[in-house]
Amino acid sequence: MTAVDEGAGRQAVIDLLGVLAYAELTAFDRLAEDARLAPTLDGRAALSRMAAAEIAHHERLTARLRELGADADAAMTPFVAALDAFHDGTRASTWLEGLVKAYVGDGLAADFYREVAAFLPQPDRALVEEVLADTGHSDFALREVRAAIAADPKVAGRLALWARRLVGEALTQSQAVIAEHDELADLIITGTGDLAGVGELLTRITTAHSARMRALGLNP
Amino acid sequence: MTAVDEGAGRQAVIDLLGVLAYAELTAFDRLAEDARLAPTLDGRAALSRMAAAEIAHHERLTARLRELGADADAAMTPFVAALDAFHDGTRASTWLEGLVKAYVGDGLAADFYREVAAFLPQPDRALVEEVLADTGHSDFALREVRAAIAADPKVAGRLALWARRLVGEALTQSQAVIAEHDELADLIITGTGDLAGVGELLTRITTAHSARMRALGLNP
Repeated sequence: MTAVDEGAGRQAVIDLLGVLAYAELTAFDRLAEDARLAPTLDGRAALSRMAAAEIAHHERLTARLRELGADADAAMTPFVAALDAFHDGTRASTWLEGLVKAYVGDGLAADFYREVAAFLPQPDRALVEEVLADTGHSDFALREVRAAIAADPKVAGRLALWARRLVGEALTQSQAVIAEHDELADLIITGTGDLAGVGELLTRITTAHSARMRALGLNP
Repeated sequence: MTAVDEGAGRQAVIDLLGVLAYAELTAFDRLAEDARLAPTLDGRAALSRMAAAEIAHHERLTARLRELGADADAAMTPFVAALDAFHDGTRASTWLEGLVKAYVGDGLAADFYREVAAFLPQPDRALVEEVLADTGHSDFALREVRAAIAADPKVAGRLALWARRLVGEALTQSQAVIAEHDELADLIITGTGDLAGVGELLTRITTAHSARMRALGLNP
């Protein structure tokens, strides 16, 4: 992996901050919606807090976009369709599905954004790493899902299928996003060095994903 | 108005913190839902930020309930039906209705809770005042609604009717809540001194409400 402190063009930085800003806004929306599926007020508050954390991140990113002289709305708009399609295609219908989505889906997305951010110049690299840092909320999802599986092991099979659907949908939409954003694609290719580098990046992401699945008690 | 530093029973404190904690949780939920009605990503983010602020308040209140040895879920549960009925009965169908609800409805509720909190012992009085302090977000609602009325004055009549419906529904539900919670009712009666004191409290709340309506450009 090569850090391209000089190479990352302004447009690639704006693209990455833009997609991330919209990802946080839409994650807020979806977590807030899934919070309603909570079986207890305590659980509802926990997921609502996760949502609130995303909005704080969204604010940091749009502030930086404005600092760069970019219009935050304009930077987010190209990514609205793909991210909305992801969420519409993976609408949680139970509390546990929502938690798996929060843990597995957001974890996967965070890993991907973090890999790409490694190719950004500072201070944007640090900003992205900061907004992606786990705020400790994922422990909650982990605990709840593991407890549910312990209480009823049959749940694990259904949730594993659901997680695979999340990954499939995420891959489809991220490929669409990258295909439409040349500067972002260039950034990844240049940053990783070559196609072998892209392969290694995908391996790292897949390995981390499998570890998260196992942590939940799900078959990767 | 008499501060009853000694008089407010523990149950009344728990009731007030409980209703307020659930009010914040449900306000989060509703603001998050209304954010989707925003015409721009910027507006959607603004309402989402208002929602996030409510969750931070919710957290403060449940932390205090636990400190008092109360179960937060149990403290909130008696108020779920009335607050849910309020929100279900006043579901915003447009972006502007959502903003008027955020400004007028939350303002009215905050005034009421603040009046009751004046009868609480410390540190609970200060905590309630703190979580009710305007976080500056209401300026956003004010600006948006005034701009919409300036662009199309006919909007004002419809929104004024909507605000009156909000107030009517709020009164219905708050009477139901107080009727079912003797300690809370006692706190208000003891705190205000007598029925004349209750009347003055209602006058203060009504005056502040009319000022908010006029600030929006609506006929009170």
